[in-house]
Amino acid sequence: MEKPLGTLSTLEEPLRTDNTLDSQALRKSVARKPRQASGLDRISRFIAKRRLQTPFLVVDLEVVADNYRTLLRALPMAQVYYAVKANPSPDIIRRLVGLGSSFDVASPSEIELVLNAGAEPERISFGNTIKKEADIARAFEQGVRLFAFDSEAELLKLARSAPGAQVFCRLLTSCEGADWPLSRKFGCNADMAHNLLLLARELGLQPYGISFHVGSQQTMLDQWEVTLEKTAKLFKALKKAGVTLEMVNIGGGLPAHYRDAVAPVESYASAITGAVTKHFGKNVPHMIVEPGRSLVGDAGVIEAEVVLISKKSYEEDVRWVYLDIGKFSGLAETHDEAIKYRIETRGRKGPTGNVILAGPSCDSVDILYEKFQYQLPLSLKIGDRLRIHAAGAYTASYSSVGFNGFAPLPTYCI
Amino acid sequence: MEKPLGTLSTLEEPLRTDNTLDSQALRKSVARKPRQASGLDRISRFIAKRRLQTPFLVVDLEVVADNYRTLLRALPMAQVYYAVKANPSPDIIRRLVGLGSSFDVASPSEIELVLNAGAEPERISFGNTIKKEADIARAFEQGVRLFAFDSEAELLKLARSAPGAQVFCRLLTSCEGADWPLSRKFGCNADMAHNLLLLARELGLQPYGISFHVGSQQTMLDQWEVTLEKTAKLFKALKKAGVTLEMVNIGGGLPAHYRDAVAPVESYASAITGAVTKHFGKNVPHMIVEPGRSLVGDAGVIEAEVVLISKKSYEEDVRWVYLDIGKFSGLAETHDEAIKYRIETRGRKGPTGNVILAGPSCDSVDILYEKFQYQLPLSLKIGDRLRIHAAGAYTASYSSVGFNGFAPLPTYCI
Repeated sequence: MEKPLGTLSTLEEPLRTDNTLDSQALRKSVARKPRQASGLDRISRFIAKRRLQTPFLVVDLEVVADNYRTLLRALPMAQVYYAVKANPSPDIIRRLVGLGSSFDVASPSEIELVLNAGAEPERISFGNTIKKEADIARAFEQGVRLFAFDSEAELLKLARSAPGAQVFCRLLTSCEGADWPLSRKFGCNADMAHNLLLLARELGLQPYGISFHVGSQQTMLDQWEVTLEKTAKLFKALKKAGVTLEMVNIGGGLPAHYRDAVAPVESYASAITGAVTKHFGKNVPHMIVEPGRSLVGDAGVIEAEVVLISKKSYEEDVRWVYLDIGKFSGLAETHDEAIKYRIETRGRKGPTGNVILAGPSCDSVDILYEKFQYQLPLSLKIGDRLRIHAAGAYTASYSSVGFNGFAPLPTYCI
Repeated sequence: MEKPLGTLSTLEEPLRTDNTLDSQALRKSVARKPRQASGLDRISRFIAKRRLQTPFLVVDLEVVADNYRTLLRALPMAQVYYAVKANPSPDIIRRLVGLGSSFDVASPSEIELVLNAGAEPERISFGNTIKKEADIARAFEQGVRLFAFDSEAELLKLARSAPGAQVFCRLLTSCEGADWPLSRKFGCNADMAHNLLLLARELGLQPYGISFHVGSQQTMLDQWEVTLEKTAKLFKALKKAGVTLEMVNIGGGLPAHYRDAVAPVESYASAITGAVTKHFGKNVPHMIVEPGRSLVGDAGVIEAEVVLISKKSYEEDVRWVYLDIGKFSGLAETHDEAIKYRIETRGRKGPTGNVILAGPSCDSVDILYEKFQYQLPLSLKIGDRLRIHAAGAYTASYSSVGFNGFAPLPTYCI
């Protein structure tokens, strides 16, 4: 399982395997052992056996399962709710249902998906703070009993359409250190959360807990503690006011393994456990964690093709490399170059040079990496296939329906 | 047809109807008479008759047809190639086929779409400069004879797989003044274009012309002239070298009518015609224009619903207004707040206040307008329906396949 990635032909940079751990300094210095190594062999065999037209995504369900189990072991105090939006492939959901996972959903369609995959409604958290009241009512009819909110208006909808349900309030966080921040749009401040949880009780709902999200692909281990401290204070203040909260939902944020090395999940778990113990003492609440990216990201590989290599003028040195996948067909997270995937050019060796990477559509927004200059072999040719690693999360589901006539990214689960 | 928009209940700002025209200063001062006015009545009746679930897009084909005819009248020297990517609804394509339009396509699927709608392959221009060679071969087999390129590698593909075809070279442009620039990714500089067009002849292709694109939603009328001057010089230089070009493809860029007033299409046409006459004299080449946004943008209205109105703290003044449509389900062009739609809150009057507008997904990128503060009525309520105007272009086709479980934006053509 932990076979090093060095067996691959041309990965852009060698992976480090140092495992020491010392606060946020390790952000850059410690490599998470890549869990997808054996998966890559299986994925390579799958691709080699078929002549599938590029681009496509292959997800190794064994890697997903392994990531799930690793997280359970590392963070035994927490119940895992898979963030379905990260990759809603029915095969992934079914596999996680079988493993005993619970599910964080954003919409009625995701509830259907999870129920159809065999999960009981008690394993669902309707975690979107922005819900139509009709959708709340439908979820409640289907047996869902756990709902997020961050405003009075949403709480009133819940009181009317999900009477007696368990509700948790989302706190605003700063998201410092996250490659894909989730601040601003979600959550309210602590004062408001306090009052809304009191109101929840008055409205006949069960004020159940607090949630927060430190931002997706979070690389600073101490970011959880900042909000856990605030959360513990809220617990105490509310207890004084007669409301005993039971649950802390620490959201997602656990990273996948892109270009930069990240700490292993165990380091995150240990930082989180330490912070919970520090601030809650013996009264450790029921913990919920909502991994998406960290369960499926490293389990997926995209195979793509080089469509064109060109220059804009005779003077310019940089090559433009155009792929048959772009921002609109799976690589939306290259927005502002936030997520930097590892790109493997198979079978091409020798010296490398700067490239600007772009997608195939007639839209200039569809440039993948321009400020951050990737280095690819000078021997790269049109028609070459390349692999985009750790691409299992936020790719296929982010695809457009067919912008420019390019089909959405197909997913093969193996 | 030219009925003023003032009949609508609450448009965000009154439309100006001054029609004087004086260089680029008119960018801000002159309103294009909104062509969608009668269409809006038809669209309103269509929506009123049905209880369709929001969000959805309604496109009035009569407005598309009217925009097409207006452009033909204004720019009689040009052949119109509709940029299919702007809205590939089969009903729109069929209507334009019936009107005699030609088509600019980006991919094999778009070629299929146009052929299935009844167009002859001679009416197709394969305008993407990034094509797989297999796709070129297939297009050639289907009868397509007009292809774009901007690099030697692409030209070699064309020589091999579309022997004898008409080819045109795309020039790099600056895109100054465009709300959605298309520079950098496409085109090569003039020196390279010159040499590649000579090479095209050597390779047995027909070096047919030059194309450029001033950027989408271009609001500076003189932007076409800058590149037309360069193009005329290239025509002369190539003629000296024994290659007589015949065609200039001036791309798209003609605007739709969003929040800011834009000049009428006649003003653009007159600026373009003047520039062509100035730089080409009596030897006016065959002209191609590729409108997308300007044909279908104003023909479409999105109906959406307010899902939540909230604040993040008691101190904050600004309201967050969450809609059931966002960046991933149709409003991708709010990226960097580039396109600012006109938003109509129906039936709500009285004083207005600042809002931050956001979509329904669990992704904080899904904020529509935050820097530019929209003003909406203080009386706005959860469950209210609102209309997003001039939304016929780059909306439905930009939708994700179902990010967060939210379905792609459905389109109704009437």
